[in-house]
Amino acid sequence: MTPRRTTAPARRTKDAGRLRARLRFVLEPDIALGPGKADMLEQIRETGSISAAGRLMGMSYKRAWLMVESMNRCFRRPLVEAAKGGTRGGGARLTPDGEEVLTQYRRMEAKATKAIEAELRALQRLAAPPAKD
Amino acid sequence: MTPRRTTAPARRTKDAGRLRARLRFVLEPDIALGPGKADMLEQIRETGSISAAGRLMGMSYKRAWLMVESMNRCFRRPLVEAAKGGTRGGGARLTPDGEEVLTQYRRMEAKATKAIEAELRALQRLAAPPAKD
Repeated sequence: MTPRRTTAPARRTKDAGRLRARLRFVLEPDIALGPGKADMLEQIRETGSISAAGRLMGMSYKRAWLMVESMNRCFRRPLVEAAKGGTRGGGARLTPDGEEVLTQYRRMEAKATKAIEAELRALQRLAAPPAKD
Repeated sequence: MTPRRTTAPARRTKDAGRLRARLRFVLEPDIALGPGKADMLEQIRETGSISAAGRLMGMSYKRAWLMVESMNRCFRRPLVEAAKGGTRGGGARLTPDGEEVLTQYRRMEAKATKAIEAELRALQRLAAPPAKD
């Protein structure tokens, strides 16, 4: 199965110049949801595999697995589960809770980004110009 | 001078149960603004001192100073400057750009939090119950 994309929508969005926000939401006491975890859920859904998802994100299998473990622990029920049997004989898939967390994160990202457009532009005017490559 | 508060508004806000979000905004390529940096600016404004601000945030002087340096480098002009002379004979203060960045951050925090209320509630329902102390 070929993943349909390797970067998150928020990072590909063309905005005014280099103005883009990546949002990390911390739900106290112990849930942190940022672009990395959202991308991981999305890639697992698309590849059916934690190791393939990690590879696409330039991450070791161990690091990808630890990220998934950490997400599973913070929620009432796991977000990612083993997908035994089937044509691929193994792999991983999102649970219904995993699907919902990913959906809610993408909504939060879209709504929050829209809500802070004016402030982002104001900050952009104060930001140092990007370094020349 | 006595600081008027030691925690950021976002952390003191009472919300439904334990539902609170702390927001980190990353403006690509290289500006990250989160609650820690916003609190640091606020404490410097209130105490007139990087070391006093750091102490109130449970941070070594070195760590506080590095945080300020990092903020100063990312923007076109410094956010914090030395306040020479005066009654305290030294210390630090926010520049006009520092004041604006702090103001814009607090606005972003308020607007984004309001924009994602429904999604936060949905995530809260999926979250593991807090550990008993």
